[in-house]
Amino acid sequence: MCFFRDNIKAMTPYVPGEQPGVGERVIKLNTNENPYPPSPAAMAVLREFDGERLRRYPHPVADAFRRTAAEVHGVDPEWVLPGNGSDELLLMIANACFDRGRRVAYAVPTFTFYRTLAEIQAAEIVEVPYDEQFSLPVDELADAGADVTLVASPNSPSGTGYAAAELARLADALAGRGLLVIDEAYADFADSDATALPGLHENVMILRTLSKGYSLAGLRVGYAVARPELLEELMKVKGIYNVGAVPCLAAAAAMRDQDYKKRCVAQVVASRRKLAAELEHLGFRVWPSESNFLLVRPPDGRAKGIYEALKARGILIRYFRQPPLDDKLRISIGTGEQNAALVEAIRETL
Amino acid sequence: MCFFRDNIKAMTPYVPGEQPGVGERVIKLNTNENPYPPSPAAMAVLREFDGERLRRYPHPVADAFRRTAAEVHGVDPEWVLPGNGSDELLLMIANACFDRGRRVAYAVPTFTFYRTLAEIQAAEIVEVPYDEQFSLPVDELADAGADVTLVASPNSPSGTGYAAAELARLADALAGRGLLVIDEAYADFADSDATALPGLHENVMILRTLSKGYSLAGLRVGYAVARPELLEELMKVKGIYNVGAVPCLAAAAAMRDQDYKKRCVAQVVASRRKLAAELEHLGFRVWPSESNFLLVRPPDGRAKGIYEALKARGILIRYFRQPPLDDKLRISIGTGEQNAALVEAIRETL
Repeated sequence: MCFFRDNIKAMTPYVPGEQPGVGERVIKLNTNENPYPPSPAAMAVLREFDGERLRRYPHPVADAFRRTAAEVHGVDPEWVLPGNGSDELLLMIANACFDRGRRVAYAVPTFTFYRTLAEIQAAEIVEVPYDEQFSLPVDELADAGADVTLVASPNSPSGTGYAAAELARLADALAGRGLLVIDEAYADFADSDATALPGLHENVMILRTLSKGYSLAGLRVGYAVARPELLEELMKVKGIYNVGAVPCLAAAAAMRDQDYKKRCVAQVVASRRKLAAELEHLGFRVWPSESNFLLVRPPDGRAKGIYEALKARGILIRYFRQPPLDDKLRISIGTGEQNAALVEAIRETL
Repeated sequence: MCFFRDNIKAMTPYVPGEQPGVGERVIKLNTNENPYPPSPAAMAVLREFDGERLRRYPHPVADAFRRTAAEVHGVDPEWVLPGNGSDELLLMIANACFDRGRRVAYAVPTFTFYRTLAEIQAAEIVEVPYDEQFSLPVDELADAGADVTLVASPNSPSGTGYAAAELARLADALAGRGLLVIDEAYADFADSDATALPGLHENVMILRTLSKGYSLAGLRVGYAVARPELLEELMKVKGIYNVGAVPCLAAAAAMRDQDYKKRCVAQVVASRRKLAAELEHLGFRVWPSESNFLLVRPPDGRAKGIYEALKARGILIRYFRQPPLDDKLRISIGTGEQNAALVEAIRETL
């Protein structure tokens, strides 16, 4: 296939977690979805949708959503760029910033799609290993001298949240030479966030999504928060109409319904504490989590066996084959009932 | 902004046509939308949408839509790759195939986004001028020796459709050395299409969209039809979940409702013939069109004046500032009533 670039032919694609059919009777705790349904306000948008809005092209920067997100974050709309999920925003960053001869750095283990993005653009990759506690390696990341540094905060699969002050220190260290992208996909479940940083540092871009906190993984809406001069460059590489009319309006409705989101998030956070305590009681090591999932190590490190035994019982959790994760499991927080079924099944497995 | 690649900083972004608000009283004939509403079957999908499908991640290759589109075209699902509009598929092709030192060719004037795509990847651009009749310059395109050749068929802004035999001749001339992408965004309105070519030529990829024939520009669904080994490479550069659950199911419902689409298309084609005759009667040169729009030249070439006079009357059509289009206008086919209002307004302007 001489039609494709050599680096594309050579690379392996990103593989997402298993997706059983909606009808299948499975307890799905493998891809960090929110266990609670989306805001009724978002569902009402779908029910009452005006066909005229489908017949026509949507607004090229999803204006209605953009204004809502800006209001929620207390910034001007020009500081927000909506995307078809935050994965699309990551692709836009890769297209606009990554290149052969340019360097991309991030700490590992983290969201493996960062590596895919770098491979798509044949960029030079620097992977800094996290320590056992998943502390942010600020100095090592700064020393990598990358054009773009990516930090997931909270990180996946560890659940670790990083304080804004720590991220600010990294932004300072990279100032004038490197962009810091803070991927806050799970920030709705965290104790704090870094959305104030773009106002203070000209090299910081925040990514958010409605897939987790807002229970809208199927809708595909994410957004970047950054200085307008950064977003203007990103806009040059985006699809012409990258956010459809339905996601634009349904996501805006969901974001206006902050009370609903906060209630769902509070339930997830309470369940997370309970599940962590129960698994620790069973002898698991549980990493401190500020997200809607837990990274855990079974008492004997027999992670794969538990993953398979649970799968046979209709409970899907995430197992990563590669070290240093191959003795650990990532478990999304479900409803109280689902978490109880999980603990019961694990107890039978041990 | 040292964070961005030099070619991104240097380029100017693609500018889409004007989009007045849905509430504004405007006759909108500037961006080639279908004047008829989407299939009631697509609207029913929205009304009855299951929130569980929004809570969860969608299928990574929009399986339900993929199977429907494959059935409509009589190919296996592996021959279809759905995208967030065909603009996303074009971006995927650019990401997978375009590069510094690689060549992209197309005839001009055409969809100006092709140039944007090449600029995003700093690819070498060969623009072959169309003649006055917009005949396909098969030999010149073949001689360009490009890694990827793009042909919009029907072409925009000319409306010209190219016979499959002619496109096959170009595919043959490029065989073994270049990919031929046939962008069939307007093929639903054409006398014929080239969807049989991927089965016959290993270097052909067809792009389709639901934005035009299916009246679903706001939904954002397009797809590629090509050999699985080509689509597998494209898949490496796509967003993880690039088609949302709503567009997947609504587009599948619209595609299953072929009768509805055919009725809408037949009305547009009949209106196109009538409008062409009326404008010719007013002294306009009208290019033969197989699309849902007409490229026309006013009697005295005073295109800009007519565009502005119509805009003042609340009728939007498309005017392109650059030669050789600056004495021409592109007019989307509206409803019978809208077309009559347009002709009346033009008559008053002349």
